[in-house]
Amino acid sequence: MTERLDRARLLAGQQGIDALLVTPGADLRYLTGYAAKPLERLTCLVVTQLGSHLVVPGLERAAAEAAGVTMPIVTWSETEDPYALVAELLGSPDVVAVDDQMWASRVFALQEALPESGFVLGGELVSALRTVKEPAEVDALRDAGAAIDRVHARMGEWLRPGRTEREVGADIARAIVEEGHEQVDFVIVGSGPNGASPHHEVSDRVIGAGEPVVVDIGGTTAAGYCSDSTRNYVAGGEPDPGYIAMLEVLQRAQQVQREYARPGVTAESVDAVGRQVIADAGYGHLFIHRTGHGIGQETHEEPYIVEGNTLELEPGMAFSIEPGIYVEGQWGARIEDIVVCTEDGIEVLNDTPRDLVRL
Amino acid sequence: MTERLDRARLLAGQQGIDALLVTPGADLRYLTGYAAKPLERLTCLVVTQLGSHLVVPGLERAAAEAAGVTMPIVTWSETEDPYALVAELLGSPDVVAVDDQMWASRVFALQEALPESGFVLGGELVSALRTVKEPAEVDALRDAGAAIDRVHARMGEWLRPGRTEREVGADIARAIVEEGHEQVDFVIVGSGPNGASPHHEVSDRVIGAGEPVVVDIGGTTAAGYCSDSTRNYVAGGEPDPGYIAMLEVLQRAQQVQREYARPGVTAESVDAVGRQVIADAGYGHLFIHRTGHGIGQETHEEPYIVEGNTLELEPGMAFSIEPGIYVEGQWGARIEDIVVCTEDGIEVLNDTPRDLVRL
Repeated sequence: MTERLDRARLLAGQQGIDALLVTPGADLRYLTGYAAKPLERLTCLVVTQLGSHLVVPGLERAAAEAAGVTMPIVTWSETEDPYALVAELLGSPDVVAVDDQMWASRVFALQEALPESGFVLGGELVSALRTVKEPAEVDALRDAGAAIDRVHARMGEWLRPGRTEREVGADIARAIVEEGHEQVDFVIVGSGPNGASPHHEVSDRVIGAGEPVVVDIGGTTAAGYCSDSTRNYVAGGEPDPGYIAMLEVLQRAQQVQREYARPGVTAESVDAVGRQVIADAGYGHLFIHRTGHGIGQETHEEPYIVEGNTLELEPGMAFSIEPGIYVEGQWGARIEDIVVCTEDGIEVLNDTPRDLVRL
Repeated sequence: MTERLDRARLLAGQQGIDALLVTPGADLRYLTGYAAKPLERLTCLVVTQLGSHLVVPGLERAAAEAAGVTMPIVTWSETEDPYALVAELLGSPDVVAVDDQMWASRVFALQEALPESGFVLGGELVSALRTVKEPAEVDALRDAGAAIDRVHARMGEWLRPGRTEREVGADIARAIVEEGHEQVDFVIVGSGPNGASPHHEVSDRVIGAGEPVVVDIGGTTAAGYCSDSTRNYVAGGEPDPGYIAMLEVLQRAQQVQREYARPGVTAESVDAVGRQVIADAGYGHLFIHRTGHGIGQETHEEPYIVEGNTLELEPGMAFSIEPGIYVEGQWGARIEDIVVCTEDGIEVLNDTPRDLVRL
């Protein structure tokens, strides 16, 4: 943590940022190790060139200490103004950077407490650190990937025609915890036409025999790292040949993307090569989302694998490759792996079959 | 939902707010019924005097529709700028209010897209609606209260000397779901000295015979409303007489607060009367937090029962009454009920014994 803070301070100095303020969320956890709850009382990491302080409500001092926070902790009582306290710690900085997810109420209160300071977003600064995973972080993501693979491998226990998406989803949620996660982040069971809505979760729809089902699931492990993998299933029958043809195209696209991704190529080009395969087959207009998102302590973080993102991949960057094709009113399919950029290619952290899984 | 939006629009007009912008969170759920996930793509409710729109990423249109959103939905594709889209819907408003928990990255992007507009917080406006619960919301809170009471009633199944806080906490978490919640929000099992840290969660500490244990637990029901109740336990022995004396004072304070609270009294006075009882007994400096918080679709929301909050209670307001006394290095105790202000007093939504529960 100390090393991460040092690097954040160095980057801040280079970018002309006098103070970096970080409230509860993944950035705070990354920089301090403290997974503070996002509650209404102000907790705020204050980083300046002179040092770091953690401002916490008095009644949370023990929780911060228990999390192993080593920097000086400054507490405020229930009737004190914590923003005045932060301002006091800062003096009169010219440029204050706040974390990207800081609440508007806090941004405005800080601007009022520091009327002479200019405010900018600090997310990119912390992101520059967070996107390149340390070896221990890659290990943690590898564990998370193996845990979600074990859940996918058990799908035959639960996914059957005649059951509802919600019933299957509840079984999956239990298994996500059983197989090594501390928390269920999301469970998508999209059967038949529901598969055409990429962010569908579950519903009371009864799964039919031979219907394609998209299963996209993820959780957070005790180490604090996320899993996220999507596979396509069918139970009790054979799906429409049109679906099979579409899924084959999708599989090819995703494979091309995995083979293409390596250090030095841009995030947007990884998207483009898969999109090309899908467009060539005539499904281009049905691939309605980007190819992927970074992953680590958050399920979705930088780098985003999307048109317009010219970021060059570097060893240590972890992200999803998850093209999808969606036919409204009929079905959808998505294949998703988490990968980590290595020195000369990528390591794929998910390993269950990518073709249609027949149960 | 339409009625809530109409009231929000009316309040906005009265306060000179031309546009209210609300991103995913409890305010959005309250105003639209849509529990959008707080992800990185912009979802934003846009309320003006002319009408309301919901801006959503294209791939989430189906999810918004499935949630029963009835207002016009405006979508943006992966490579469009959603902030420009919001600005277009707004024209050139003088005063734009944003929800209190809107991310800094969004606030800054909106300020850039609407350079001529002044920005204020809209949280108070939505809070004014949310703090006074509708009858159906009170029903939902009553159900949540009964559900968490059933968990407290089963504590003897799990809380035993020789087990760790974490083991007991895992059992409680399972029971929170079994007894009628969709989601576990928090589980605090503070044994012995850990009870002196109000926001302690669980640890690997082994619970000793005769040690006081604070158990503060809550979850969210399928209806989307939260529970939150704290009780004090001891297993396998009798605690120190000093603790017993302290708990009796706490019980008296909490009872006085329940008897005192009614329409027309201020939030801070509810805090003050309990604090008086505790101070009279010599424990004033050990009651280190406010008396309570509002509750509804969020565990912590307005009204806060704290010194300085001169808000007068009204029928329909729901909040916790949870004084606590904390002796560092020894033990702590807290008694917490959720109550709803009625026409002539309060209704208490929790009903398990408030004195020391001996297991």
